[in-house]
Amino acid sequence: MLNRRHFLSTTLLAGLTTLFTNTKAAADQSKKIFSSNSPPKPVIVSNGRKLPWEIVNGAKQFHLIAEECEQEFAPGMKVKCWGYNGSTPGPIIEATEGDRVRILLTNNLKEHTTVHWHGIFLPNGMDGVGGLTQPSIKPGETYAYEFTLRQHGTFMYHPHADEMVQMAVGMMGMFIIHPKEQVTNVDRDFAIMLHEWAIHPGTYRPDPAVMLDFNIFTMNGKVFPAIEPMVVKTGERVRLRLGNLSMDQHPMHLHGFAFKVTATDGGQIPAAGQWPQTTVPVPVGSTRDVEFIADEPGDWVFHCHKSHHTMNAMGHDIPNTLGVDQSEVSQRIQSLLPGYMAMGEDGMAEHAMHGKHMTGPENTLPMMMGDGPFGPIEMGGMFTVIKVRDQLSNYDDPGWYEHPKGTLPKKW
Amino acid sequence: MLNRRHFLSTTLLAGLTTLFTNTKAAADQSKKIFSSNSPPKPVIVSNGRKLPWEIVNGAKQFHLIAEECEQEFAPGMKVKCWGYNGSTPGPIIEATEGDRVRILLTNNLKEHTTVHWHGIFLPNGMDGVGGLTQPSIKPGETYAYEFTLRQHGTFMYHPHADEMVQMAVGMMGMFIIHPKEQVTNVDRDFAIMLHEWAIHPGTYRPDPAVMLDFNIFTMNGKVFPAIEPMVVKTGERVRLRLGNLSMDQHPMHLHGFAFKVTATDGGQIPAAGQWPQTTVPVPVGSTRDVEFIADEPGDWVFHCHKSHHTMNAMGHDIPNTLGVDQSEVSQRIQSLLPGYMAMGEDGMAEHAMHGKHMTGPENTLPMMMGDGPFGPIEMGGMFTVIKVRDQLSNYDDPGWYEHPKGTLPKKW
Amino acid sequence: MLNRRHFLSTTLLAGLTTLFTNTKAAADQSKKIFSSNSPPKPVIVSNGRKLPWEIVNGAKQFHLIAEECEQEFAPGMKVKCWGYNGSTPGPIIEATEGDRVRILLTNNLKEHTTVHWHGIFLPNGMDGVGGLTQPSIKPGETYAYEFTLRQHGTFMYHPHADEMVQMAVGMMGMFIIHPKEQVTNVDRDFAIMLHEWAIHPGTYRPDPAVMLDFNIFTMNGKVFPAIEPMVVKTGERVRLRLGNLSMDQHPMHLHGFAFKVTATDGGQIPAAGQWPQTTVPVPVGSTRDVEFIADEPGDWVFHCHKSHHTMNAMGHDIPNTLGVDQSEVSQRIQSLLPGYMAMGEDGMAEHAMHGKHMTGPENTLPMMMGDGPFGPIEMGGMFTVIKVRDQLSNYDDPGWYEHPKGTLPKKW
Repeated sequence: MLNRRHFLSTTLLAGLTTLFTNTKAAADQSKKIFSSNSPPKPVIVSNGRKLPWEIVNGAKQFHLIAEECEQEFAPGMKVKCWGYNGSTPGPIIEATEGDRVRILLTNNLKEHTTVHWHGIFLPNGMDGVGGLTQPSIKPGETYAYEFTLRQHGTFMYHPHADEMVQMAVGMMGMFIIHPKEQVTNVDRDFAIMLHEWAIHPGTYRPDPAVMLDFNIFTMNGKVFPAIEPMVVKTGERVRLRLGNLSMDQHPMHLHGFAFKVTATDGGQIPAAGQWPQTTVPVPVGSTRDVEFIADEPGDWVFHCHKSHHTMNAMGHDIPNTLGVDQSEVSQRIQSLLPGYMAMGEDGMAEHAMHGKHMTGPENTLPMMMGDGPFGPIEMGGMFTVIKVRDQLSNYDDPGWYEHPKGTLPKKW
Repeated sequence: MLNRRHFLSTTLLAGLTTLFTNTKAAADQSKKIFSSNSPPKPVIVSNGRKLPWEIVNGAKQFHLIAEECEQEFAPGMKVKCWGYNGSTPGPIIEATEGDRVRILLTNNLKEHTTVHWHGIFLPNGMDGVGGLTQPSIKPGETYAYEFTLRQHGTFMYHPHADEMVQMAVGMMGMFIIHPKEQVTNVDRDFAIMLHEWAIHPGTYRPDPAVMLDFNIFTMNGKVFPAIEPMVVKTGERVRLRLGNLSMDQHPMHLHGFAFKVTATDGGQIPAAGQWPQTTVPVPVGSTRDVEFIADEPGDWVFHCHKSHHTMNAMGHDIPNTLGVDQSEVSQRIQSLLPGYMAMGEDGMAEHAMHGKHMTGPENTLPMMMGDGPFGPIEMGGMFTVIKVRDQLSNYDDPGWYEHPKGTLPKKW
Repeated sequence: MLNRRHFLSTTLLAGLTTLFTNTKAAADQSKKIFSSNSPPKPVIVSNGRKLPWEIVNGAKQFHLIAEECEQEFAPGMKVKCWGYNGSTPGPIIEATEGDRVRILLTNNLKEHTTVHWHGIFLPNGMDGVGGLTQPSIKPGETYAYEFTLRQHGTFMYHPHADEMVQMAVGMMGMFIIHPKEQVTNVDRDFAIMLHEWAIHPGTYRPDPAVMLDFNIFTMNGKVFPAIEPMVVKTGERVRLRLGNLSMDQHPMHLHGFAFKVTATDGGQIPAAGQWPQTTVPVPVGSTRDVEFIADEPGDWVFHCHKSHHTMNAMGHDIPNTLGVDQSEVSQRIQSLLPGYMAMGEDGMAEHAMHGKHMTGPENTLPMMMGDGPFGPIEMGGMFTVIKVRDQLSNYDDPGWYEHPKGTLPKKW
């Protein structure tokens, strides 16, 4: 308790309405925190923020602001989303079992909204289903939800009003409830909200009417390589908390380790029921907690295994030219569409090299964006790296892994 | 035994061929039944019916009739489906482990069919795979399947002949086998068949060639708000039996409670392997039984968490106009298409209010249809309400929940 | 050990570079092997092959060759794929926990590639992520991966370079690691790689830019009825090892039995956590091992339960004509498109009978292809048969099941 009150002192927060939006500052602050060992250990939010609180009338009072926000998915692409307090996903709400929480929702959108507390046990009136359990909250209004937390785990918040539109354009966040007493010995505890978007090339607003054909895939509102790596010391126990409010189940795959699926938003799974996996399917409308011991150093990738979900907007709806000599036709199309680059006769790897310095549609990321120590990493989208190191003085990005002699594939 | 023979006496059924089609009557009858406590407790089929039987030559004899039927998904939309005994899904077959069953299938379609008993252990010849384990059953023919039930749980029946077409247009049903002795203390036991349909706006026949882009989503052949609520007394143990023969996994989410996944169509899951969840992904070609104690009164929604699956036909393939002033263009389009309503500049919530009294394509439900105690519930499709009440004299719909003072979000 | 050295003697393999491609010979050889009982019992690869090895410098040395290959999915359809050693999926790599393995990868493609060893614990440098853990392997180059196997189970291999393209066109294979000591008493152990393809009618190259709308579905690179049946003796314990690197989860359904899900590519599931199922959803980027006792003789089908996935290319994107008299319009279209066959007014079953002798688009399989003992089996794609027999002198295809008297449905 004492530790978190230190982190977010009531003095600091008094009167705060717009809340801090500097993610760099938040990240720095969280790095400092995580050197502490006092339970409950705060969750880590790569690229994200936490919602501050202050004690008011015996409850932890949080303030969510539903509003339009311009979010940079990666340099070169800014998207007009709807979110909370200036970002999508909104800042994480973090609390402890037994807490009385009061969450104000101010609606700065131009249409009504509500907040539903996904997975959380509460009185029916606090459930946030517009029309059914409350009137929807009109533009300009503020409503207060208040309830006592009777459980712990990984939960979410999102609107239950014009839900199809509001979730598609980014209104969602995670709600972490720590147990009163720490039940596992987790050293690094990361929270990641998955999402997918239909942002037609050359546009800057997500299209909420798309049901299937998404083209941008994010972790905590960013695409690779703009997603911060997760930094871990060899031997540490790592928990990944994954949330999904998109339209597709995402099979999230980890290299180098097998994890156990330890919890859902319905609670902890008994030890004998925890499946070992390298790929956890995170169903729509669900969270999954997975845990593993990071006992092997290196740069280990963590990504959605649907291969198109590790590509950006160019990864589909292009003509198939494998095995086709198209040198002439490409030139002709380029005279009309200067940014045009056909899929290669021999594959698409050349895009990773050329894509970055060619002109594509406005505000549209190239398909493959990353650069690694050995050349282009032909990935974008829902892809990141867990950096496991034997020696770490802090959890700042340690750079690329230096492979011990004899542990790289040899040219034969 | 005695109780069910009372329910469906052989006298009543002798010679019955068309079977009762009045769902209201069936529902009333089932309400009466469930005040009885004698095991095995019959399953409850919201909006649906059960297939009667009579003892003939030592077997429980059922009679399924494969036929075209006109089904009202909700007022304003009637669909030409194929089903059994006048509806889709067909009536539930309910029996007990150890029973000898004989099921007659009369084919009143214009093409051949078979019935496969999904998940049920039986002699290979009774498996119903047209061409492989039997000749397909021609129009006008009747075949008798006969086998002894060696297991209990939640199963399904569907054709294994022209399967892609016949299932897409509605040929399916559930097959509940009770254990000889009740193994759990379930008080309310609901069976729900999920399905999805491609019914192009303005048409009235499902399109079986659609593989991905479905636009109507049903529980027991109905869309919200035409889906009957599930009524439960506070503290009762509730089982939901969910079946899916569509083309998509449906992540079914319950508000207010966490349930345990207790069984699949492969059998009971050991207690230590039962995952607690708030959202159960029901895979294609599977059933899931989930159980929870309804210990919190209120109106709790239960729905597919793919947000487009809680919308009707308008929820996709419309232009994205978020943030676009379209007042002029809308007028122009309306002069050509009188029912046209663009997605709003500021979201789609306005549709819930205006959609109902505007003219849309013929035989096509508006996207959002429900009305609640606090205004429009912006939902359609695969969405319903579980009504949990402290006081109930019967299981008729008790109306909307009255929230105790102080349990609604406050205007701030 | 001795047994397998007999199977693939080092003498036989010395200098082998192109490796054996005769699947018939491999199948015959494996049939002989499985009459042996010495652990570890080799896995069975219907329609497929295993990658030979020889001991070189203390390691089992395998040689994979990435290359274009022409693969016959079924008679009438040859596809220009990319695979390994002449096929897709590539030959299975089979080894034992504790083995030191060295795997050479020669790149005979026209663009660079790598190999990632999906699910396998190894030094980070051997992980095969192009750009991140190694430079991608250029056309003409050979690289050697070398590591010691520290686990057992069902794993996979595939490129992590231009991954979206290379996996879509077939570059993938399975990697089976046996435990040092056999942990289950499995009698028949089948390995099946699932995949899906977008091969536009009339073309012969998979389209890697398709993300959703696939039209050909394979097991070990074949479609039904070109998929070899799995032959089992009554009472034997059967394991199916299923791998999936496509873009969709496939719900694989077994008739006649319930299996338990015993392992994933993350390891063995504790007994209490093994769900009984008749349909196992195999997530993208995952493997699933399932086990059952084949205690009921017969011809039992095993298939993806998404009904379109048991159809070939004609199963979608055709007009819906259910209930429409189209005799005249069909004639008119046929005068323009000689192969045109509308979906029937009364269903599509007639296609199974007529489809085979009508002219369709070039190199495109008819939708339903199988023939059974009772007429057409209206299936194609991801569908096969497990043949369980009381008497077997070997595991050759025993023909169709002969049903005992009284075990077929009776005409009424």
